[in-house]
Amino acid sequence: MNKLGIVFGKLLEQLIHRMPKFRMPKSLSRSDMMLQLDSQPLQQRMPQPTKTAVLVIGGAEDKLHGRQILHTFFQRSGGTDARIAIIPSASREPAVIGSRYHDIFEEMGAKAIEVIDIRDREHGSDGDWQAFIEDCTGVFMTGGDQLRLCDLLSDTPIMNCVRQRARSGEVTLAGTSAGAAVMGHHMIAGGGSGESPNQSLVDMTIGLGIIPEVIVDQHFHNRNRMARLLSAVAAYPDKLGIGIDEDTCAMFEGNLFESYGRFSSLQVIGKGTVTIVDPVEMTHTNYAQVSNADPIGIHNLHLHILSQGDRYDLEKRQVIPADRC
Amino acid sequence: MNKLGIVFGKLLEQLIHRMPKFRMPKSLSRSDMMLQLDSQPLQQRMPQPTKTAVLVIGGAEDKLHGRQILHTFFQRSGGTDARIAIIPSASREPAVIGSRYHDIFEEMGAKAIEVIDIRDREHGSDGDWQAFIEDCTGVFMTGGDQLRLCDLLSDTPIMNCVRQRARSGEVTLAGTSAGAAVMGHHMIAGGGSGESPNQSLVDMTIGLGIIPEVIVDQHFHNRNRMARLLSAVAAYPDKLGIGIDEDTCAMFEGNLFESYGRFSSLQVIGKGTVTIVDPVEMTHTNYAQVSNADPIGIHNLHLHILSQGDRYDLEKRQVIPADRC
Repeated sequence: MNKLGIVFGKLLEQLIHRMPKFRMPKSLSRSDMMLQLDSQPLQQRMPQPTKTAVLVIGGAEDKLHGRQILHTFFQRSGGTDARIAIIPSASREPAVIGSRYHDIFEEMGAKAIEVIDIRDREHGSDGDWQAFIEDCTGVFMTGGDQLRLCDLLSDTPIMNCVRQRARSGEVTLAGTSAGAAVMGHHMIAGGGSGESPNQSLVDMTIGLGIIPEVIVDQHFHNRNRMARLLSAVAAYPDKLGIGIDEDTCAMFEGNLFESYGRFSSLQVIGKGTVTIVDPVEMTHTNYAQVSNADPIGIHNLHLHILSQGDRYDLEKRQVIPADRC
Repeated sequence: MNKLGIVFGKLLEQLIHRMPKFRMPKSLSRSDMMLQLDSQPLQQRMPQPTKTAVLVIGGAEDKLHGRQILHTFFQRSGGTDARIAIIPSASREPAVIGSRYHDIFEEMGAKAIEVIDIRDREHGSDGDWQAFIEDCTGVFMTGGDQLRLCDLLSDTPIMNCVRQRARSGEVTLAGTSAGAAVMGHHMIAGGGSGESPNQSLVDMTIGLGIIPEVIVDQHFHNRNRMARLLSAVAAYPDKLGIGIDEDTCAMFEGNLFESYGRFSSLQVIGKGTVTIVDPVEMTHTNYAQVSNADPIGIHNLHLHILSQGDRYDLEKRQVIPADRC
């Protein structure tokens, strides 16, 4: 098959992944598919924008009244056709928190809901849960402790499936608070405030890598976490720092046909702001030269404070204001 | 006198202002001066960089051990030749705080020290104090309440003299905490933290206008004031936001011959950071459209975190790292 054929085959495969009722039969080769496709009219072959998304929520999202963020997750998971998996493993009270979200999504009218109550790494390969994860349309990771969530889930078959399906646009994924913190490859495990940016102000570890190119901080302005996010960005200036306020969500979307496996933009939903610390043009940091408690200098960052409706183009690194979205 | 002559005369006048022992005799005209100057060798006519500065201190500066910032102020005021005025009017205990700084500068060996204990607006035109202010080499404004300081001092003959002499490089001026807050034309009078940037997070009023082009916030990272400074910058995007940590100083200097009446750079001294929020390329804010408690969006700010020795060029709006200063 020539190069064009390979690319076209890949696109086709992705398109089919987005149509749960038209799974690619394993016996059918890409060449067969292309032959079949050639006989279809052009309009049917045109890609439709995916409706899946990754919702990174800054914690304390409205669970009672407007439920704007949770409702968006529900809709992006398929609405009344949604099959939702709730992962409450960050919490030390997974049954309580799992049941709370279960009731919310049930009230909204989801078709199926399963609390994937992983309390042990062995559960991470549980057959029934894995089957649900492979077929669900939405996954919701609750708050709690992000270290606990990673300890229990990273590199388990269930989490690998969640990541692969979220990154290829097959499922809508949401994480709130600790569930948001784990999104990057590098993760803020903890830290402080009330100090000049410095290395000891933030504890970094490895997250779940759903959106590897970002470092997420949550409860952001509410808990005054700018200095710790700046300290994290100084440590990993190839990443984009994203601080998300409470009851606020950075909704990542991918344009499947333009950015294979990468999210192309985020949009802000909710009552607070999303802060973007972009070191793409950083000219200098003394991070490597100073000791743990010394103040860190970081020169030439770009900073954006986004509010409801604002969109950020992750490829061009540009903001599109709400009224131009 | 032709245009060149006028410019040269102005420069000469400024040069002379910087030489306390060679005051311009009032009977001598600019043309006379130029004639005298023409007979001097070129080297003597070359301007010497001024040693005066405006030290904007984030509060809680070391008063006991290294005293790096206070010692810099003392040196920039002339060292053992210094004649220092202390203005304790921001404080509700001006005698106590005035005496504390008096003892420090006395211990350092200042030639003359006067506590200008203005407790009433009428004191702002006190003849003896005014005479001291007109002839002193350093002025130190203590902490306390910036509103109190402005209420007592703004538009008094004494403060007008301090501003004029500081802005023309005749005197070194320092202000710490409340004494730092008053430096801009727009002043942060108070505010909160722990919220998304919003209008109600910061109370703005008019400061003393020593460095009109900046908005200063102090105790900056120590009291988590990023969101309030961002809110202030969104309100006045023609200004430069400057957040100064405790025991840290942004030392403003002017190059008299290049930036008449404007400070051309600042340098960081001390144990914390100086944060610069530069809206020069800001593309959008919803500040004017949203109500008081709504989150503010601000797109495309430049952000610099400077540490000890870093310099910031206020004209080019560029950082010069410490190792290249």
